[in-house]
Amino acid sequence: MNTFGRIFRVSIFGESHGEAIGIVMDGVPEGMELSAADFAADIARRSPGKRGAEARGDFASAQAAPGAAAPAAFGTTPRVEADEPQILSGVVDGHTTGAPLTIVFRNANTRSGDYGEFDAMPRPGHADYVAAVKWDWANDPRGGGHFSGRITLPVVAAGVVAKKVLEGIDISAKLIEVGGCPDSARWPELLTAATAEGDSLGGVVQCTATGLPVGLGEPFFDSVESLVSHAVFSIPGVRGIEFGDGFAAARMKGSEHNDPFGPEGPVKNGAGGVNGGITNGAPLVFRVAFKPTSSIAKAQQTWNFAENREDTLRIKGRHDVCFALRTPVIVEAMTAIVLADLL
Amino acid sequence: MNTFGRIFRVSIFGESHGEAIGIVMDGVPEGMELSAADFAADIARRSPGKRGAEARGDFASAQAAPGAAAPAAFGTTPRVEADEPQILSGVVDGHTTGAPLTIVFRNANTRSGDYGEFDAMPRPGHADYVAAVKWDWANDPRGGGHFSGRITLPVVAAGVVAKKVLEGIDISAKLIEVGGCPDSARWPELLTAATAEGDSLGGVVQCTATGLPVGLGEPFFDSVESLVSHAVFSIPGVRGIEFGDGFAAARMKGSEHNDPFGPEGPVKNGAGGVNGGITNGAPLVFRVAFKPTSSIAKAQQTWNFAENREDTLRIKGRHDVCFALRTPVIVEAMTAIVLADLL
Amino acid sequence: MNTFGRIFRVSIFGESHGEAIGIVMDGVPEGMELSAADFAADIARRSPGKRGAEARGDFASAQAAPGAAAPAAFGTTPRVEADEPQILSGVVDGHTTGAPLTIVFRNANTRSGDYGEFDAMPRPGHADYVAAVKWDWANDPRGGGHFSGRITLPVVAAGVVAKKVLEGIDISAKLIEVGGCPDSARWPELLTAATAEGDSLGGVVQCTATGLPVGLGEPFFDSVESLVSHAVFSIPGVRGIEFGDGFAAARMKGSEHNDPFGPEGPVKNGAGGVNGGITNGAPLVFRVAFKPTSSIAKAQQTWNFAENREDTLRIKGRHDVCFALRTPVIVEAMTAIVLADLL
Amino acid sequence: MNTFGRIFRVSIFGESHGEAIGIVMDGVPEGMELSAADFAADIARRSPGKRGAEARGDFASAQAAPGAAAPAAFGTTPRVEADEPQILSGVVDGHTTGAPLTIVFRNANTRSGDYGEFDAMPRPGHADYVAAVKWDWANDPRGGGHFSGRITLPVVAAGVVAKKVLEGIDISAKLIEVGGCPDSARWPELLTAATAEGDSLGGVVQCTATGLPVGLGEPFFDSVESLVSHAVFSIPGVRGIEFGDGFAAARMKGSEHNDPFGPEGPVKNGAGGVNGGITNGAPLVFRVAFKPTSSIAKAQQTWNFAENREDTLRIKGRHDVCFALRTPVIVEAMTAIVLADLL
Repeated sequence: MNTFGRIFRVSIFGESHGEAIGIVMDGVPEGMELSAADFAADIARRSPGKRGAEARGDFASAQAAPGAAAPAAFGTTPRVEADEPQILSGVVDGHTTGAPLTIVFRNANTRSGDYGEFDAMPRPGHADYVAAVKWDWANDPRGGGHFSGRITLPVVAAGVVAKKVLEGIDISAKLIEVGGCPDSARWPELLTAATAEGDSLGGVVQCTATGLPVGLGEPFFDSVESLVSHAVFSIPGVRGIEFGDGFAAARMKGSEHNDPFGPEGPVKNGAGGVNGGITNGAPLVFRVAFKPTSSIAKAQQTWNFAENREDTLRIKGRHDVCFALRTPVIVEAMTAIVLADLL
Repeated sequence: MNTFGRIFRVSIFGESHGEAIGIVMDGVPEGMELSAADFAADIARRSPGKRGAEARGDFASAQAAPGAAAPAAFGTTPRVEADEPQILSGVVDGHTTGAPLTIVFRNANTRSGDYGEFDAMPRPGHADYVAAVKWDWANDPRGGGHFSGRITLPVVAAGVVAKKVLEGIDISAKLIEVGGCPDSARWPELLTAATAEGDSLGGVVQCTATGLPVGLGEPFFDSVESLVSHAVFSIPGVRGIEFGDGFAAARMKGSEHNDPFGPEGPVKNGAGGVNGGITNGAPLVFRVAFKPTSSIAKAQQTWNFAENREDTLRIKGRHDVCFALRTPVIVEAMTAIVLADLL
Repeated sequence: MNTFGRIFRVSIFGESHGEAIGIVMDGVPEGMELSAADFAADIARRSPGKRGAEARGDFASAQAAPGAAAPAAFGTTPRVEADEPQILSGVVDGHTTGAPLTIVFRNANTRSGDYGEFDAMPRPGHADYVAAVKWDWANDPRGGGHFSGRITLPVVAAGVVAKKVLEGIDISAKLIEVGGCPDSARWPELLTAATAEGDSLGGVVQCTATGLPVGLGEPFFDSVESLVSHAVFSIPGVRGIEFGDGFAAARMKGSEHNDPFGPEGPVKNGAGGVNGGITNGAPLVFRVAFKPTSSIAKAQQTWNFAENREDTLRIKGRHDVCFALRTPVIVEAMTAIVLADLL
Repeated sequence: MNTFGRIFRVSIFGESHGEAIGIVMDGVPEGMELSAADFAADIARRSPGKRGAEARGDFASAQAAPGAAAPAAFGTTPRVEADEPQILSGVVDGHTTGAPLTIVFRNANTRSGDYGEFDAMPRPGHADYVAAVKWDWANDPRGGGHFSGRITLPVVAAGVVAKKVLEGIDISAKLIEVGGCPDSARWPELLTAATAEGDSLGGVVQCTATGLPVGLGEPFFDSVESLVSHAVFSIPGVRGIEFGDGFAAARMKGSEHNDPFGPEGPVKNGAGGVNGGITNGAPLVFRVAFKPTSSIAKAQQTWNFAENREDTLRIKGRHDVCFALRTPVIVEAMTAIVLADLL
């Protein structure tokens, strides 16, 4: 199912190299102002190339650093799509109507010739192989089909709407690690080196939501952590998630990890803002581990299923050196969608 | 909502100190043999005290170690419940009927007097505070109410049924770390020390499922990782989850993390058995971080909301020093429930 | 799936002749007073025999009529169950806690010997045949298993809770036709005659809900009519449902059927209280057609699948002459469950 | 929620006079041939005007009848939309991919000027009033917004896909009554007369599905009747539904209504193909009552909420005299969607 949420509910559709990709949102309140311009900033943060790097301002200063030559320093694919949102339904005269809100993005700049060979030789780390087995090779192989990271574009658009719904709540995600390095000043250098090697890097994103009331979430299956992790693990390339002290909590004593209460609620935040699955008024804090980009120029071993022999794969195409750079806005969007549904 | 799954679907109910707790399972195939005896082994593994320690065999040899005096070495509460499953529906003459299967456990050994004061003074790390705010103080405070770890008992029972459904698939979870220490021979010592200090320890559980076909799961919202993490984060006390290389993947290069393909599928397992949200035939592998038990005998600062002043809390009751010891069978159960639903 | 509703959600379980039947309710507000005594009146209205007839007061005067000898006049089976609700969870100290509310009824008075032969010779009008084919004959044949009308008992209990949630809204269903006759004074006579013939009668129930706000329901798939009909057709033995003018509307002109608006909303109620799937402030009105009881003493032709030949079936057991007599309270319960979910 | 189904699941979106309307289908099997041409025949059957009348062939002979002047005889609005389906996702190279299938129809021929006054003066029988109250007057008033019958166009498209999924199953709906008259030869005359009076007519549609296996559906909440009625009541203008003998069953005796079994299953079909909520192998048969079109040229009383006084409304626009003429293909589509989900 390509649907998430109970009241504020999103359904995504589209293949990377098909006609269009899009999202349908149920449960959007009526009367909210909304226009295509509202989406520009968040969509730019997800963009590759120079436009994205500027919008994120991730390591603006670092770009001036000697030896950090563009475009490698951007760490992202030069493939550029217009990414123009088209609102098909749910908005009239610049206001939401309460009916399902549909946003579509046309796919224009596709070079499916790049992808022909993966029918026979599945790319390591990609879904080529499982899709071929699951859907009897009928799945669209061009550009990863429905698995493509491009599917996160409509998610970002839905996040913009969800953030509007969450008045008074601030959701902010940022990259805190690239290739194991927390010092953003050194990232351009690492990205340049990985580009030169035809290799790729992973990263860690931290997301914080403030202004949440006490009481969102339910014990057990609708715990805040259950819903957030469900949404976050649907972003391609996530390997782990942890809340508050996270994995470090497993190495702490109860007296260290427990958050004492003061008159306003917890006075520290080892729990990441959630007790018993329910928000406790402290900021919701979690971190997400993104793997390194699977598509690399470097030679990789794979199996040639057409000729039934080992083979070597060098992925040409245009790919991110570190797609994690583009993910903070996607993590924000998923978080906003979950919180809008809980509210 | 207290329900999880789409086809094989479980709904839990009950409060720790109410009349009974239980679970209803939809989608159980008809004609499977099932009796109360089938539940004994897994229920014992979740048990506290000597019975649980024996059933798990977690550190049998270590118990003979000098200085590891029982019962502290068991690391779990001496509170003992009969934990007798009662099958209310869905089974006739020892076979499932295809109708909803209901299992109930009576609550007998309750000492609610232990819990009176938490109305006014919420326990750090517990849901007392959020439940009080969310439900206007009407929630049952005795024993954590619907939040109690005791609610995982019917989940274990459902896991037994799910494992029966998953013929040919083996799911096995074990504790790989206690208090940050991976060497199980040293755990009794750590547990004894924490008991003496009136403190508690966390742990890490690793779960592996083998025998899975290629193709379980869906891209995006029903990815295997989304569903497993959703289920696992509903277990009280989880702080993080990671698949395959997990957080370490964020520090690897693509050429290191990618799993090359051989004729039978991937030849290593950095992805933890999942590509693009779909099982790839390799074992499903993930790790879960459990926090240290929140209820500790050691003095903790909290807020006395009745008298509106800072106060000190020493939790008496009977609690696990390290409840993570009892969780591997719960993680297995959640995994089995997710996989049974996907099949 | 045995679950209905999105926010106020019910899940039923149990077989007529198993250990117990019951219902789990999610989404019950916290702090509502609730005790076993609250269920007595509605449960009595569903009862067969003298107790039910008195509780319904359906044709009290008629019973004094000459020639209307009890028990035939009651029109219902003399099988009597204690029908004692047991609240397993969700209520503490006489108040709801906000956690799932579970109510169970033990099955005591079962005479499964009555049902042995239906394995081989499916009863006309019953689910014996489809259950046998669908579940490979593993389904519990005793008493209709999960199909039994007895499953409506927990629904009535859930209806009591839902009615409590619907403060200020009055839901009232009554029988308006028995065996095609709208004059209740003549019903005892018809029932006596049908009993004497070993035959059975159907009936029509009309349900009215007043005090509804404008705006419940959604256009299309969550229209009030969609949800009510979904719930009502899950009651065994329903053959049709119509709202407002119903089938007669198909024979009217627009100028006759349309409800003109006055300052308070519609001034007549041909639409049955719903426009475009959404309540319009007028009473919700609908009628439900119940078939005659399938189990009759009269000889019926069926197929003997054991001996592969035509055979004649005379159903002994103890059955309602007109089970529709017992259904108004069930229709009310289903309506209350739908409305509680919409609110 | 604008979503229906569990496995084969449809989500509709769009307003009659917005940019576009459409539908997203989850659970479409991969590898099915599908092109825009497949939709032409069913879309034509839903069309108004001459095109629709020809495609339906409803009363072809009657049109030659003296005095049945076109276009009144067509009984449908002359508003013509291109109704060109555009497949946005889920199909590549003429075959389904297993990913969500999205079909969009642009809205071109809109004359929203026709609808301005309904803000203040709600049309009797329409959702203007409830939408205004529910959504705080923000709902799109032009053309009925999300309530419009135009929303059934994507449903017809989804029905085409569902019918493809249902290989070997034949679903056929036809009009059996117009304005209370079952003789189709007389319908043109009735329609002409109603047109002349500025009034409208209702109708009854009968739907039959053959080739169904025994065993579709579940007892209780997922009974075939529950699901079909849920889907059918989401079609605007439905007032009632009945299965098999329907309301007449309530006036029959058990010995008349029961369907005896022969070696192949039931030998007559009073139950309409369903026992205990589950298909019994006989054709699924049900009838649906459609109200007369609400929008009529004839003067109607309504309330002028702008001026707070009684007023008279004459609806200009272009409307069907009897929209029921266009509904059989919609009823088929809803039935196909339900059955595809159950299979």
